[in-house]
Amino acid sequence: MRVCDIGEFDLIERLKGIFGADAPPGVEVGIGDDAAVIQPAGKARLVVTTDALIENVHFLTRRIEPRLLGRRALAANLSDVAAMGAQPRYALLVLGLRSDANVEYVLELAKGMAELGAEHQTRIIGGDITRSPAALSITITLVGEAVNGVLTRSGAHPGDLIIVTGDLGGSAAGMGIAANPSAAASLPQEAREALLKRHCDPTPRVREGLLLARQGLATAAIDISDGLAGDLRHICEMSGVGASLDPEAIPIAHATRLAAAWLGQDATVLALQGGEDYELLFTCTPANADAVVAALVPTPVTSVGAILAEPGLRLVGPAAERYERRLHSYDHFRAPSGG
Amino acid sequence: MRVCDIGEFDLIERLKGIFGADAPPGVEVGIGDDAAVIQPAGKARLVVTTDALIENVHFLTRRIEPRLLGRRALAANLSDVAAMGAQPRYALLVLGLRSDANVEYVLELAKGMAELGAEHQTRIIGGDITRSPAALSITITLVGEAVNGVLTRSGAHPGDLIIVTGDLGGSAAGMGIAANPSAAASLPQEAREALLKRHCDPTPRVREGLLLARQGLATAAIDISDGLAGDLRHICEMSGVGASLDPEAIPIAHATRLAAAWLGQDATVLALQGGEDYELLFTCTPANADAVVAALVPTPVTSVGAILAEPGLRLVGPAAERYERRLHSYDHFRAPSGG
Repeated sequence: MRVCDIGEFDLIERLKGIFGADAPPGVEVGIGDDAAVIQPAGKARLVVTTDALIENVHFLTRRIEPRLLGRRALAANLSDVAAMGAQPRYALLVLGLRSDANVEYVLELAKGMAELGAEHQTRIIGGDITRSPAALSITITLVGEAVNGVLTRSGAHPGDLIIVTGDLGGSAAGMGIAANPSAAASLPQEAREALLKRHCDPTPRVREGLLLARQGLATAAIDISDGLAGDLRHICEMSGVGASLDPEAIPIAHATRLAAAWLGQDATVLALQGGEDYELLFTCTPANADAVVAALVPTPVTSVGAILAEPGLRLVGPAAERYERRLHSYDHFRAPSGG
Repeated sequence: MRVCDIGEFDLIERLKGIFGADAPPGVEVGIGDDAAVIQPAGKARLVVTTDALIENVHFLTRRIEPRLLGRRALAANLSDVAAMGAQPRYALLVLGLRSDANVEYVLELAKGMAELGAEHQTRIIGGDITRSPAALSITITLVGEAVNGVLTRSGAHPGDLIIVTGDLGGSAAGMGIAANPSAAASLPQEAREALLKRHCDPTPRVREGLLLARQGLATAAIDISDGLAGDLRHICEMSGVGASLDPEAIPIAHATRLAAAWLGQDATVLALQGGEDYELLFTCTPANADAVVAALVPTPVTSVGAILAEPGLRLVGPAAERYERRLHSYDHFRAPSGG
């Protein structure tokens, strides 16, 4: 069944069934009016972010199932709210669909989104459906509530440690596997599956962002969507500082190293530039380092460098020279060699 | 200069210059972080809406200047917030751009958006820029504040009057003129210009929505984006009522009648189905009719029908039969004959 067979309004009714027709707590008016109406919790600040995924730019429909695509689209936004230290609450969804888009496909996508939303207390409360002549596009606006302070990119100070949660490069390695799944059969099954999940179904660090904000432990934070090097640069620019980064300190999973070798790539380069790992990158004072580790248990955290007064990103340690010339992050409009 | 020549981050810097780098009142964190942070006014409810315009579906770049396109994209969202009776405050912008998109074009578009925003106390405080392989897409999320009650689609009661602001069909007539501007030279210049403005640069009824909400005068409201018939149906469905509508009572400007004749179309059909007039359609008790007129001065308001207990939309008056078979509203996915 195609979208043009049932029409926009019927499709909206079916989506309402998936997202829940009742207005969740805090929502006075949900799906179906000109706008949604939210009653923010007393004194909460609202955190608002928006992000688009476009077919053939951010994903290939033949390489990701619609349910996972729905999860991944929401995860990118959840991760942005997590990096602000806020609780994600409400999402608005804009779908750009071809007239001949398959209704089942769209509903599966919505189910994935609703599912991941439920895992993070987030409901889809409105949006827009529109015809898109060529590509499928998924644009999500996410509203979160910050009851305690928020984490921003702009509070890093010289002397702060630079910390990352989890491990990096896994999403880029997973993308390489997704591009050539049959050849990837030579990799251990467990590694293959873990990396595919990293790429297709990343876990946004909502819990960790909330804990850091609540306990006032981070001086600055960002989620890693452009790659460690690029996102660290964003923190430096917004904070008016520089940073030293030790490539050998970057946490990289064994599975990522195996896949990088199979791909003929350097695992550290995947971690520095791969992007879409959706780990948190944050800074804290050395005095708070132990408290950070304790607060985030069982999530592993690793110190990868330090904030400097002089602007710019400087690699340090024995591997510095090897990676110095390869430092650039992803820009949607420029060739990979252009940074 | 193309977007791929300067890159995403440079483009964002230039857009910041247009949208204003300082955080406006109520905004703690603006453009440049993972999310924007809003401190809502005490006890205000927040109204959130999102809407996409896609090239070759909603507009043709050769028929509308970028500055006007920017205004029109924001106007559609402002109109949704107006229909809720709220004050628009903050906007997030997602631009999907081809790599070879012209930077000047994008900046002009942003200027139009900033300009119309300023006319309605609305600032662009964040967003996302992404590559779009084929078409230009503009997705805006608008956040408004409702200090008094909100207007919804669901409060209409049998016996209520059905009211529209301004006049209808002008946007559809303007679209006809934009499609063939040289042939339209036979129309009086004033009419031509007025209708082109209706189509390319509509005025959202923000003031009127706020007045209706503040004075509690409307029982239900919607903005006319799908055409009078379709949008009245939305009110009926959400309110669980029906409606009678007198086609001859619909306010239609003289310029629209002239253009309809030139287009070989029926002006009333343009008003019923044309869409994108961005007038308000609302209901009120007969006892409040005079108060509505007085409250909205100098904006003209016209009663076009009444809410009925029985579901369905019924045309009444001498012209009822003529339009009965042509009643359908715009569905983005179905052919015009499909309703």
